[in-house]
Amino acid sequence: MTPECVFEVPPGAAAVPLSILKVRDDAVIAAPDHLAVEEPLEIRLGGMAFTVTMRTPGHDEDLVAGLLHGEGVIRGADSLDVIARYRGPGGEPHANVINVLLKGNLHVARERLRRSLISSSACGVCGKVSIEAIRTGSAPVASAAAVSPALFPRLAAALAAAQPTFERTGGLHAAALFDLAGRLFVLREDVGRHNAVDKVVGHMLRVGSFPLDDCILMVSGRASFEIMQKAWSARIPIVAAVSAPSSMAVQLALAADITLVGFLRGGSFNVYAGAHRVTTAVPEPV
Amino acid sequence: MTPECVFEVPPGAAAVPLSILKVRDDAVIAAPDHLAVEEPLEIRLGGMAFTVTMRTPGHDEDLVAGLLHGEGVIRGADSLDVIARYRGPGGEPHANVINVLLKGNLHVARERLRRSLISSSACGVCGKVSIEAIRTGSAPVASAAAVSPALFPRLAAALAAAQPTFERTGGLHAAALFDLAGRLFVLREDVGRHNAVDKVVGHMLRVGSFPLDDCILMVSGRASFEIMQKAWSARIPIVAAVSAPSSMAVQLALAADITLVGFLRGGSFNVYAGAHRVTTAVPEPV
Repeated sequence: MTPECVFEVPPGAAAVPLSILKVRDDAVIAAPDHLAVEEPLEIRLGGMAFTVTMRTPGHDEDLVAGLLHGEGVIRGADSLDVIARYRGPGGEPHANVINVLLKGNLHVARERLRRSLISSSACGVCGKVSIEAIRTGSAPVASAAAVSPALFPRLAAALAAAQPTFERTGGLHAAALFDLAGRLFVLREDVGRHNAVDKVVGHMLRVGSFPLDDCILMVSGRASFEIMQKAWSARIPIVAAVSAPSSMAVQLALAADITLVGFLRGGSFNVYAGAHRVTTAVPEPV
Repeated sequence: MTPECVFEVPPGAAAVPLSILKVRDDAVIAAPDHLAVEEPLEIRLGGMAFTVTMRTPGHDEDLVAGLLHGEGVIRGADSLDVIARYRGPGGEPHANVINVLLKGNLHVARERLRRSLISSSACGVCGKVSIEAIRTGSAPVASAAAVSPALFPRLAAALAAAQPTFERTGGLHAAALFDLAGRLFVLREDVGRHNAVDKVVGHMLRVGSFPLDDCILMVSGRASFEIMQKAWSARIPIVAAVSAPSSMAVQLALAADITLVGFLRGGSFNVYAGAHRVTTAVPEPV
Protein backbone atom coordinates (compact mmCIF):
# COMPACT_ATOMS: atom_id res chain seq x y z
CA MET A 1 0.00 0.00 0.00
CA THR A 2 2.48 2.59 -1.20
CA PRO A 3 1.01 6.11 -1.21
CA GLU A 4 0.17 7.25 -4.73
CA CYS A 5 2.60 10.14 -4.51
CA VAL A 6 5.59 7.76 -4.32
CA PHE A 7 7.23 7.22 -7.72
CA GLU A 8 8.26 3.84 -9.06
CA VAL A 9 11.86 2.90 -9.82
CA PRO A 10 12.27 0.73 -12.97
CA PRO A 11 13.95 -2.58 -12.08
CA GLY A 12 17.74 -2.37 -12.44
CA ALA A 13 17.88 1.40 -13.02
CA ALA A 14 20.90 3.21 -11.50
CA ALA A 15 19.28 6.65 -11.79
CA VAL A 16 15.69 7.78 -11.93
CA PRO A 17 14.22 11.08 -13.25
CA LEU A 18 12.20 13.30 -10.95
CA SER A 19 10.69 16.76 -11.18
CA ILE A 20 11.88 18.97 -8.32
CA LEU A 21 11.81 22.61 -7.21
CA LYS A 22 15.07 24.51 -7.53
CA VAL A 23 15.53 27.56 -5.30
CA ARG A 24 18.29 29.87 -6.57
CA ASP A 25 18.48 32.89 -4.29
CA ASP A 26 15.06 34.47 -4.80
CA ALA A 27 13.98 32.44 -7.84
CA VAL A 28 11.96 29.21 -7.53
CA ILE A 29 11.64 27.01 -10.62
CA ALA A 30 10.28 23.54 -11.29
CA ALA A 31 12.94 21.54 -13.12
CA PRO A 32 13.74 17.94 -14.13
CA ASP A 33 16.44 16.17 -12.11
CA HIS A 34 17.95 12.70 -11.63
CA LEU A 35 18.31 10.74 -8.39
CA ALA A 36 20.82 7.99 -7.67
CA VAL A 37 18.80 4.83 -7.06
CA GLU A 38 19.05 3.15 -3.63
CA GLU A 39 17.25 -0.19 -3.31
CA PRO A 40 17.59 -3.25 -1.04
CA LEU A 41 19.36 -6.34 -2.37
CA GLU A 42 18.63 -9.64 -0.68
CA ILE A 43 21.38 -12.25 -0.82
CA ARG A 44 20.35 -15.89 -0.50
CA LEU A 45 22.96 -18.50 0.32
CA GLY A 46 22.02 -22.07 -0.48
CA GLY A 47 18.38 -20.98 -0.82
CA MET A 48 18.20 -19.28 2.56
CA ALA A 49 18.18 -15.52 3.19
CA PHE A 50 21.62 -14.44 4.39
CA THR A 51 21.60 -10.64 4.42
CA VAL A 52 20.09 -7.52 2.87
CA THR A 53 22.14 -4.55 1.79
CA MET A 54 21.03 -1.18 0.43
CA ARG A 55 22.73 -0.61 -2.92
CA THR A 56 22.47 1.01 -6.33
CA PRO A 57 21.28 -1.66 -8.81
CA GLY A 58 23.80 -2.85 -11.38
CA HIS A 59 26.59 -5.45 -11.26
CA ASP A 60 24.72 -7.15 -8.41
CA GLU A 61 26.50 -10.48 -8.99
CA ASP A 62 29.86 -8.72 -8.63
CA LEU A 63 28.64 -7.00 -5.47
CA VAL A 64 27.64 -10.33 -3.93
CA ALA A 65 30.88 -12.06 -4.94
CA GLY A 66 32.93 -9.20 -3.49
CA LEU A 67 30.90 -9.11 -0.29
CA LEU A 68 31.22 -12.88 0.27
CA HIS A 69 34.96 -12.64 -0.38
CA GLY A 70 35.33 -9.72 2.03
CA GLU A 71 33.50 -11.69 4.73
CA GLY A 72 35.80 -14.66 4.21
CA VAL A 73 32.96 -16.91 3.00
CA ILE A 74 34.69 -17.59 -0.33
CA ARG A 75 38.39 -17.54 -1.16
CA GLY A 76 38.17 -17.34 -4.94
CA ALA A 77 35.95 -17.79 -7.99
CA ASP A 78 36.36 -21.57 -7.78
CA SER A 79 34.30 -21.56 -4.55
CA LEU A 80 31.30 -20.22 -6.47
CA ASP A 81 28.94 -22.66 -8.16
CA VAL A 82 26.03 -20.39 -9.13
CA ILE A 83 25.57 -16.68 -8.59
CA ALA A 84 22.47 -15.46 -10.39
CA ARG A 85 19.30 -13.46 -10.07
CA TYR A 86 16.55 -15.29 -8.19
CA ARG A 87 13.60 -16.39 -10.31
CA GLY A 88 10.11 -16.90 -8.98
CA PRO A 89 7.93 -19.99 -9.51
CA GLY A 90 6.89 -18.68 -12.94
CA GLY A 91 10.51 -18.05 -13.96
CA GLU A 92 10.22 -14.28 -13.53
CA PRO A 93 13.49 -12.66 -12.42
CA HIS A 94 13.46 -10.68 -9.16
CA ALA A 95 15.44 -7.45 -9.56
CA ASN A 96 16.45 -7.27 -5.90
CA VAL A 97 17.29 -10.89 -4.98
CA ILE A 98 20.51 -12.77 -5.82
CA ASN A 99 20.87 -16.51 -5.29
CA VAL A 100 24.25 -18.01 -4.45
CA LEU A 101 25.21 -21.66 -4.49
CA LEU A 102 28.66 -22.57 -3.25
CA LYS A 103 30.78 -25.56 -4.20
CA GLY A 104 31.76 -27.93 -1.46
CA ASN A 105 30.34 -28.07 2.00
CA LEU A 106 27.70 -25.43 2.58
CA HIS A 107 27.93 -26.16 6.29
CA VAL A 108 31.58 -25.07 6.28
CA ALA A 109 30.71 -21.80 4.51
CA ARG A 110 27.89 -21.06 6.94
CA GLU A 111 30.14 -21.80 9.88
CA ARG A 112 32.85 -19.52 8.46
CA LEU A 113 30.24 -16.81 8.01
CA ARG A 114 28.87 -17.29 11.51
CA ARG A 115 32.33 -16.98 13.00
CA SER A 116 33.05 -13.90 10.87
CA LEU A 117 29.89 -12.22 12.15
CA ILE A 118 30.60 -13.24 15.74
CA SER A 119 34.12 -11.84 15.62
CA SER A 120 32.95 -8.51 14.26
CA SER A 121 30.16 -8.36 16.85
CA ALA A 122 32.54 -9.07 19.69
CA CYS A 123 35.17 -6.46 18.91
CA GLY A 124 34.00 -3.93 21.46
CA VAL A 125 33.77 -6.35 24.35
CA CYS A 126 37.14 -5.64 25.90
CA GLY A 127 36.51 -1.91 25.59
CA LYS A 128 39.74 -1.61 23.68
CA VAL A 129 40.16 -1.69 19.94
CA SER A 130 41.87 -4.79 18.68
CA ILE A 131 42.38 -4.78 14.95
CA GLU A 132 43.55 -8.37 15.26
CA ALA A 133 40.29 -9.41 16.88
CA ILE A 134 38.25 -7.89 14.08
CA ARG A 135 40.34 -9.30 11.27
CA THR A 136 40.31 -13.03 11.68
CA GLY A 137 43.94 -13.88 11.33
CA SER A 138 45.13 -12.06 8.23
CA ALA A 139 48.83 -11.57 7.64
CA PRO A 140 50.14 -8.18 6.45
CA VAL A 141 49.92 -7.63 2.70
CA ALA A 142 53.28 -8.80 1.37
CA SER A 143 53.74 -6.90 -1.87
CA ALA A 144 56.82 -5.35 -3.44
CA ALA A 145 54.61 -2.93 -5.40
CA ALA A 146 56.02 0.60 -5.66
CA VAL A 147 54.85 3.70 -7.51
CA SER A 148 56.05 7.21 -8.30
CA PRO A 149 54.33 10.07 -6.43
CA ALA A 150 53.44 11.45 -9.86
CA LEU A 151 51.04 8.55 -10.41
CA PHE A 152 48.43 9.54 -7.83
CA PRO A 153 47.13 12.76 -9.43
CA ARG A 154 46.54 10.74 -12.61
CA LEU A 155 44.39 8.24 -10.69
CA ALA A 156 42.27 11.07 -9.30
CA ALA A 157 41.74 12.51 -12.77
CA ALA A 158 40.84 9.09 -14.17
CA LEU A 159 38.32 8.48 -11.36
CA ALA A 160 36.62 11.83 -11.94
CA ALA A 161 36.51 11.31 -15.71
CA ALA A 162 34.91 7.86 -15.47
CA GLN A 163 31.91 8.51 -13.21
CA PRO A 164 28.92 8.57 -15.56
CA THR A 165 26.04 8.40 -13.06
CA PHE A 166 27.59 10.83 -10.59
CA GLU A 167 27.49 13.44 -13.35
CA ARG A 168 23.73 13.16 -13.50
CA THR A 169 22.87 12.68 -9.82
CA GLY A 170 25.74 14.00 -7.69
CA GLY A 171 24.77 11.21 -5.32
CA LEU A 172 27.08 8.26 -5.90
CA HIS A 173 30.36 7.02 -4.52
CA ALA A 174 32.92 5.43 -6.83
CA ALA A 175 35.63 2.81 -6.42
CA ALA A 176 38.19 1.97 -9.10
CA LEU A 177 41.03 -0.49 -9.48
CA PHE A 178 44.21 0.44 -11.37
CA ASP A 179 47.43 -1.37 -12.21
CA LEU A 180 50.77 0.05 -11.09
CA ALA A 181 51.07 2.02 -14.34
CA GLY A 182 47.75 3.75 -13.64
CA ARG A 183 45.68 1.80 -16.19
CA LEU A 184 42.05 1.37 -15.13
CA PHE A 185 40.75 -2.19 -14.74
CA VAL A 186 37.24 -1.38 -13.56
CA LEU A 187 35.21 1.44 -11.97
CA ARG A 188 31.92 0.99 -10.17
CA GLU A 189 29.47 3.48 -8.62
CA ASP A 190 27.06 2.97 -5.74
CA VAL A 191 25.24 4.98 -3.05
CA GLY A 192 27.37 2.95 -0.60
CA ARG A 193 31.15 3.32 -0.87
CA HIS A 194 31.63 -0.18 0.57
CA ASN A 195 29.31 -1.57 -2.14
CA ALA A 196 31.36 0.10 -4.87
CA VAL A 197 34.48 -1.60 -3.46
CA ASP A 198 32.68 -4.97 -3.28
CA LYS A 199 31.61 -4.58 -6.93
CA VAL A 200 35.19 -3.87 -8.02
CA VAL A 201 36.69 -6.78 -6.06
CA GLY A 202 33.85 -9.10 -7.11
CA HIS A 203 34.41 -8.21 -10.77
CA MET A 204 38.11 -9.05 -10.59
CA LEU A 205 37.35 -12.29 -8.74
CA ARG A 206 34.71 -13.41 -11.24
CA VAL A 207 36.78 -12.64 -14.36
CA GLY A 208 39.72 -14.57 -12.89
CA SER A 209 42.01 -11.56 -12.33
CA PHE A 210 43.03 -12.42 -8.77
CA PRO A 211 45.40 -11.86 -6.97
CA LEU A 212 45.34 -8.06 -6.65
CA ASP A 213 48.71 -7.65 -4.94
CA ASP A 214 49.99 -5.36 -7.73
CA CYS A 215 46.87 -3.16 -7.90
CA ILE A 216 45.77 0.22 -6.54
CA LEU A 217 42.27 0.80 -5.14
CA MET A 218 40.93 4.34 -5.35
CA VAL A 219 37.73 5.51 -3.65
CA SER A 220 35.78 8.75 -3.78
CA GLY A 221 35.15 10.34 -0.40
CA ARG A 222 36.67 9.02 2.81
CA ALA A 223 38.62 5.94 3.79
CA SER A 224 36.95 4.12 6.69
CA PHE A 225 37.89 1.00 8.61
CA GLU A 226 35.42 -0.99 6.49
CA ILE A 227 37.05 0.05 3.19
CA MET A 228 40.50 -0.88 4.49
CA GLN A 229 39.21 -4.21 5.79
CA LYS A 230 37.94 -5.04 2.29
CA ALA A 231 41.28 -3.98 0.75
CA TRP A 232 43.10 -6.21 3.23
CA SER A 233 40.88 -9.20 2.45
CA ALA A 234 41.63 -8.68 -1.24
CA ARG A 235 45.40 -8.23 -0.52
CA ILE A 236 45.47 -4.83 -2.27
CA PRO A 237 48.74 -3.06 -1.27
CA ILE A 238 47.84 0.57 -2.13
CA VAL A 239 44.61 2.48 -1.33
CA ALA A 240 43.96 6.11 -2.30
CA ALA A 241 40.99 8.23 -1.20
CA VAL A 242 39.75 11.66 -2.29
CA SER A 243 39.05 12.68 1.32
CA ALA A 244 40.23 11.97 4.87
CA PRO A 245 40.90 8.57 6.45
CA SER A 246 39.62 7.70 9.94
CA SER A 247 41.90 6.70 12.81
CA MET A 248 41.00 3.01 12.42
CA ALA A 249 41.59 3.14 8.67
CA VAL A 250 45.16 4.30 9.38
CA GLN A 251 45.61 1.80 12.23
CA LEU A 252 44.52 -1.03 9.95
CA ALA A 253 46.74 0.24 7.12
CA LEU A 254 49.73 0.21 9.50
CA ALA A 255 48.91 -3.26 10.83
CA ALA A 256 48.35 -4.67 7.33
CA ASP A 257 51.24 -2.76 5.72
CA ILE A 258 48.90 -1.17 3.18
CA THR A 259 49.96 2.16 1.66
CA LEU A 260 47.18 4.66 2.45
CA VAL A 261 46.92 7.96 0.58
CA GLY A 262 44.24 10.58 1.38
CA PHE A 263 43.08 14.04 0.33
CA LEU A 264 44.11 13.20 -3.22
CA ARG A 265 43.12 16.34 -5.11
CA GLY A 266 44.89 17.96 -8.05
CA GLY A 267 48.64 17.59 -7.56
CA SER A 268 48.38 17.18 -3.78
CA PHE A 269 47.90 14.24 -1.44
CA ASN A 270 48.83 12.95 2.01
CA VAL A 271 50.51 9.63 2.82
CA TYR A 272 49.17 8.16 6.09
CA ALA A 273 50.80 4.73 6.03
CA GLY A 274 53.16 2.61 3.95
CA ALA A 275 55.18 5.50 2.49
CA HIS A 276 57.88 3.01 1.47
CA ARG A 277 55.82 2.15 -1.63
CA VAL A 278 55.72 5.79 -2.80
CA THR A 279 59.16 6.50 -4.19
CA THR A 280 60.82 8.60 -6.85
CA ALA A 281 63.02 5.59 -7.56
CA VAL A 282 60.12 4.34 -9.69
CA PRO A 283 59.87 6.04 -13.12
CA GLU A 284 56.98 8.44 -13.58
CA PRO A 285 54.10 6.98 -15.58
CA VAL A 286 54.05 8.09 -19.21
CA MET B 1 49.26 -8.50 19.52
CA THR B 2 48.99 -5.16 17.76
CA PRO B 3 52.07 -4.36 15.65
CA GLU B 4 54.27 -1.77 17.30
CA CYS B 5 53.84 0.64 14.41
CA VAL B 6 50.11 1.06 15.21
CA PHE B 7 49.42 4.16 17.30
CA GLU B 8 47.13 4.21 20.35
CA VAL B 9 43.96 6.28 20.53
CA PRO B 10 43.34 7.82 23.98
CA PRO B 11 39.96 6.64 25.40
CA GLY B 12 37.15 9.02 24.44
CA ALA B 13 39.20 11.15 22.03
CA ALA B 14 37.34 12.45 18.94
CA ALA B 15 40.53 13.29 17.06
CA VAL B 16 44.07 11.97 17.30
CA PRO B 17 47.35 13.58 16.16
CA LEU B 18 49.53 11.82 13.63
CA SER B 19 52.65 12.70 11.68
CA ILE B 20 52.11 12.23 7.95
CA LEU B 21 53.80 12.94 4.62
CA LYS B 22 52.29 15.75 2.57
CA VAL B 23 52.94 15.71 -1.17
CA ARG B 24 52.31 19.11 -2.79
CA ASP B 25 53.15 18.89 -6.47
CA ASP B 26 56.86 18.13 -6.39
CA ALA B 27 57.47 18.85 -2.70
CA VAL B 28 57.28 16.14 0.00
CA ILE B 29 57.20 17.27 3.63
CA ALA B 30 56.63 15.51 6.94
CA ALA B 31 53.91 17.38 8.83
CA PRO B 32 51.63 16.97 11.86
CA ASP B 33 47.97 16.18 11.12
CA HIS B 34 44.80 15.10 12.94
CA LEU B 35 42.58 12.09 12.21
CA ALA B 36 38.92 11.72 13.06
CA VAL B 37 38.69 8.82 15.52
CA GLU B 38 36.68 5.74 14.48
CA GLU B 39 36.25 3.08 17.18
CA PRO B 40 33.76 0.28 17.86
CA LEU B 41 31.04 0.85 20.46
CA GLU B 42 29.41 -2.20 21.99
CA ILE B 43 25.86 -1.77 23.23
CA ARG B 44 24.65 -4.14 25.95
CA LEU B 45 20.95 -4.47 26.60
CA GLY B 46 20.00 -5.96 29.96
CA GLY B 47 23.58 -7.17 30.38
CA MET B 48 23.74 -8.97 27.03
CA ALA B 49 25.60 -7.81 23.91
CA PHE B 50 23.09 -6.39 21.45
CA THR B 51 25.11 -4.74 18.68
CA VAL B 52 28.40 -3.07 17.80
CA THR B 53 28.62 0.12 15.79
CA MET B 54 31.69 1.96 14.51
CA ARG B 55 31.54 5.54 15.76
CA THR B 56 33.53 8.58 16.83
CA PRO B 57 33.73 8.58 20.66
CA GLY B 58 31.77 11.27 22.47
CA HIS B 59 28.11 11.53 23.52
CA ASP B 60 27.93 7.73 23.45
CA GLU B 61 24.89 7.64 25.76
CA ASP B 62 23.03 9.94 23.36
CA LEU B 63 24.09 7.75 20.43
CA VAL B 64 22.70 4.65 22.13
CA ALA B 65 19.44 6.34 23.15
CA GLY B 66 18.94 7.65 19.61
CA LEU B 67 19.74 4.28 18.06
CA LEU B 68 17.33 2.40 20.34
CA HIS B 69 14.64 4.97 19.59
CA GLY B 70 15.25 4.70 15.83
CA GLU B 71 14.93 0.91 16.03
CA GLY B 72 11.65 1.21 17.91
CA VAL B 73 13.05 -0.39 21.07
CA ILE B 74 12.20 2.64 23.22
CA ARG B 75 9.48 5.24 22.71
CA GLY B 76 10.79 7.96 25.01
CA ALA B 77 13.14 8.77 27.87
CA ASP B 78 10.74 7.18 30.37
CA SER B 79 11.53 3.76 28.88
CA LEU B 80 15.17 4.14 29.93
CA ASP B 81 16.23 3.05 33.39
CA VAL B 82 20.01 3.18 33.15
CA ILE B 83 22.22 4.16 30.24
CA ALA B 84 25.84 4.33 31.33
CA ARG B 85 29.36 3.28 30.53
CA TYR B 86 30.08 -0.34 31.40
CA ARG B 87 32.41 -0.87 34.34
CA GLY B 88 34.59 -3.91 34.81
CA PRO B 89 34.86 -6.02 37.98
CA GLY B 90 37.33 -3.51 39.47
CA GLY B 91 35.05 -0.58 38.70
CA GLU B 92 37.15 0.60 35.77
CA PRO B 93 35.08 2.23 33.01
CA HIS B 94 35.30 0.72 29.52
CA ALA B 95 35.53 3.47 26.90
CA ASN B 96 33.82 1.45 24.18
CA VAL B 97 30.97 -0.35 25.99
CA ILE B 98 27.61 1.16 27.00
CA ASN B 99 25.19 -0.67 29.29
CA VAL B 100 21.45 -0.13 28.93
CA LEU B 101 18.74 -1.18 31.35
CA LEU B 102 15.16 -0.62 30.29
CA LYS B 103 12.13 -0.09 32.50
CA GLY B 104 9.34 -2.60 32.23
CA ASN B 105 9.44 -5.91 30.50
CA LEU B 106 12.82 -6.60 28.92
CA HIS B 107 11.25 -9.49 27.04
CA VAL B 108 8.90 -7.04 25.28
CA ALA B 109 11.83 -4.80 24.26
CA ARG B 110 13.84 -7.73 22.95
CA GLU B 111 10.82 -8.99 21.02
CA ARG B 112 10.26 -5.52 19.53
CA LEU B 113 13.91 -5.42 18.52
CA ARG B 114 13.81 -8.90 17.06
CA ARG B 115 10.79 -7.98 14.96
CA SER B 116 12.43 -4.72 13.87
CA LEU B 117 15.50 -6.59 12.69
CA ILE B 118 13.43 -9.26 10.96
CA SER B 119 11.35 -6.70 9.10
CA SER B 120 14.43 -4.88 7.84
CA SER B 121 16.07 -8.15 6.83
CA ALA B 122 13.00 -9.22 4.91
CA CYS B 123 12.56 -6.12 2.80
CA GLY B 124 14.12 -7.52 -0.35
CA VAL B 125 12.25 -10.80 -0.31
CA CYS B 126 9.51 -9.88 -2.74
CA GLY B 127 12.08 -8.34 -5.07
CA LYS B 128 10.16 -5.09 -4.94
CA VAL B 129 10.77 -2.18 -2.64
CA SER B 130 8.09 -1.70 -0.04
CA ILE B 131 8.68 1.29 2.17
CA GLU B 132 5.74 0.11 4.27
CA ALA B 133 7.37 -3.27 4.88
CA ILE B 134 10.58 -1.65 6.07
CA ARG B 135 8.92 0.89 8.31
CA THR B 136 6.84 -1.05 10.78
CA GLY B 137 3.56 0.79 10.62
CA SER B 138 4.47 4.45 10.95
CA ALA B 139 1.91 7.06 9.96
CA PRO B 140 3.00 10.09 7.92
CA VAL B 141 4.48 12.93 9.96
CA ALA B 142 1.51 15.17 10.76
CA SER B 143 3.04 18.59 11.30
CA ALA B 144 1.80 22.05 10.34
CA ALA B 145 5.39 23.34 10.44
CA ALA B 146 6.21 25.82 7.67
CA VAL B 147 9.31 27.88 6.91
CA SER B 148 10.43 30.63 4.56
CA PRO B 149 12.82 29.61 1.76
CA ALA B 150 15.20 32.23 3.17
CA LEU B 151 15.72 30.08 6.28
CA PHE B 152 17.65 27.26 4.62
CA PRO B 153 20.85 29.13 3.64
CA ARG B 154 21.10 30.22 7.28
CA LEU B 155 20.97 26.61 8.45
CA ALA B 156 23.82 25.70 6.09
CA ALA B 157 25.93 28.56 7.40
CA ALA B 158 25.20 27.60 11.02
CA LEU B 159 26.16 23.97 10.35
CA ALA B 160 29.46 24.93 8.74
CA ALA B 161 30.27 27.37 11.55
CA ALA B 162 29.65 24.84 14.32
CA GLN B 163 31.80 21.89 13.22
CA PRO B 164 34.86 22.01 15.46
CA THR B 165 36.40 18.59 14.77
CA PHE B 166 35.76 18.70 11.03
CA GLU B 167 38.01 21.77 10.91
CA ARG B 168 40.91 19.74 12.21
CA THR B 169 40.35 16.41 10.46
CA GLY B 170 38.19 16.99 7.38
CA GLY B 171 36.84 13.54 8.18
CA LEU B 172 33.57 13.90 10.07
CA HIS B 173 29.90 14.12 9.21
CA ALA B 174 27.64 16.46 11.13
CA ALA B 175 23.95 16.47 12.03
CA ALA B 176 22.18 19.41 13.65
CA LEU B 177 18.69 20.12 14.91
CA PHE B 178 17.14 23.59 14.58
CA ASP B 179 13.81 25.11 15.57
CA LEU B 180 11.60 26.72 12.92
CA ALA B 181 13.28 30.10 13.48
CA GLY B 182 16.68 28.55 12.68
CA ARG B 183 17.99 28.47 16.27
CA LEU B 184 20.37 25.58 16.88
CA PHE B 185 19.42 23.03 19.55
CA VAL B 186 22.35 20.67 19.17
CA LEU B 187 25.04 19.66 16.67
CA ARG B 188 26.98 16.40 16.73
CA GLU B 189 29.84 15.06 14.61
CA ASP B 190 30.75 11.47 13.79
CA VAL B 191 32.54 9.43 11.13
CA GLY B 192 29.09 7.91 10.47
CA ARG B 193 26.34 10.28 9.35
CA HIS B 194 23.69 7.96 10.86
CA ASN B 195 25.54 8.08 14.20
CA ALA B 196 25.52 11.89 14.17
CA VAL B 197 21.73 11.78 13.67
CA ASP B 198 21.34 9.22 16.48
CA LYS B 199 23.38 11.46 18.80
CA VAL B 200 21.18 14.47 18.02
CA VAL B 201 17.90 12.59 18.47
CA GLY B 202 19.21 10.82 21.59
CA HIS B 203 20.24 14.15 23.11
CA MET B 204 16.77 15.63 22.61
CA LEU B 205 15.15 12.48 23.99
CA ARG B 206 17.34 12.38 27.11
CA VAL B 207 16.93 16.08 27.96
CA GLY B 208 13.15 15.74 27.65
CA SER B 209 12.77 17.87 24.49
CA PHE B 210 10.55 15.46 22.58
CA PRO B 211 8.45 15.66 20.39
CA LEU B 212 10.44 17.05 17.45
CA ASP B 213 7.50 17.81 15.16
CA ASP B 214 8.44 21.49 14.92
CA CYS B 215 12.15 20.91 14.27
CA ILE B 216 14.47 20.82 11.26
CA LEU B 217 17.22 18.21 10.90
CA MET B 218 20.23 19.19 8.82
CA VAL B 219 22.97 16.76 7.76
CA SER B 220 26.29 17.24 6.01
CA GLY B 221 26.73 15.12 2.89
CA ARG B 222 23.96 13.04 1.38
CA ALA B 223 20.47 12.03 2.48
CA SER B 224 20.08 8.24 2.40
CA PHE B 225 17.15 5.99 3.20
CA GLU B 226 18.63 5.35 6.65
CA ILE B 227 18.76 9.05 7.55
CA MET B 228 15.15 9.55 6.46
CA GLN B 229 14.06 6.47 8.42
CA LYS B 230 15.57 7.97 11.57
CA ALA B 231 13.89 11.32 10.89
CA TRP B 232 10.55 9.53 10.43
CA SER B 233 10.96 7.60 13.69
CA ALA B 234 11.63 10.90 15.47
CA ARG B 235 8.66 12.59 13.67
CA ILE B 236 10.88 15.37 12.29
CA PRO B 237 8.94 17.16 9.50
CA ILE B 238 11.82 18.89 7.65
CA VAL B 239 15.21 17.43 6.63
CA ALA B 240 17.93 19.36 4.79
CA ALA B 241 21.14 17.91 3.33
CA VAL B 242 24.26 19.54 1.89
CA SER B 243 24.40 16.99 -0.96
CA ALA B 244 22.11 14.75 -3.00
CA PRO B 245 19.34 12.47 -1.73
CA SER B 246 18.97 8.88 -2.97
CA SER B 247 15.82 7.58 -4.67
CA MET B 248 14.67 5.78 -1.51
CA ALA B 249 15.29 8.86 0.61
CA VAL B 250 12.86 10.75 -1.62
CA GLN B 251 10.40 7.84 -1.74
CA LEU B 252 10.38 7.68 2.05
CA ALA B 253 10.03 11.47 2.33
CA LEU B 254 7.00 11.34 0.03
CA ALA B 255 5.43 8.42 1.93
CA ALA B 256 6.08 10.05 5.32
CA ASP B 257 5.19 13.57 4.17
CA ILE B 258 8.61 14.86 5.25
CA THR B 259 9.95 17.97 3.53
CA LEU B 260 13.29 17.02 1.96
CA VAL B 261 15.76 19.67 0.83
CA GLY B 262 19.09 18.81 -0.85
CA PHE B 263 22.15 20.47 -2.39
CA LEU B 264 21.83 23.22 0.21
CA ARG B 265 24.82 25.43 -0.61
CA GLY B 266 25.05 29.20 -0.40
CA GLY B 267 21.72 30.69 -1.45
CA SER B 268 20.68 27.64 -3.47
CA PHE B 269 18.86 24.41 -2.69
CA ASN B 270 16.51 21.84 -4.21
CA VAL B 271 13.18 20.69 -2.78
CA TYR B 272 12.58 16.98 -3.42
CA ALA B 273 9.46 16.38 -1.34
CA GLY B 274 6.99 18.22 0.89
CA ALA B 275 7.33 21.61 -0.83
CA HIS B 276 4.10 22.71 0.90
CA ARG B 277 6.13 23.48 4.04
CA VAL B 278 8.46 25.85 2.17
CA THR B 279 6.45 29.02 1.61
CA THR B 280 6.95 32.76 1.33
CA ALA B 281 3.75 33.13 3.40
CA VAL B 282 6.01 32.56 6.43
CA PRO B 283 8.03 35.67 7.44
CA GLU B 284 11.76 35.53 6.77
CA PRO B 285 13.83 34.80 9.87
CA VAL B 286 15.44 37.86 11.39
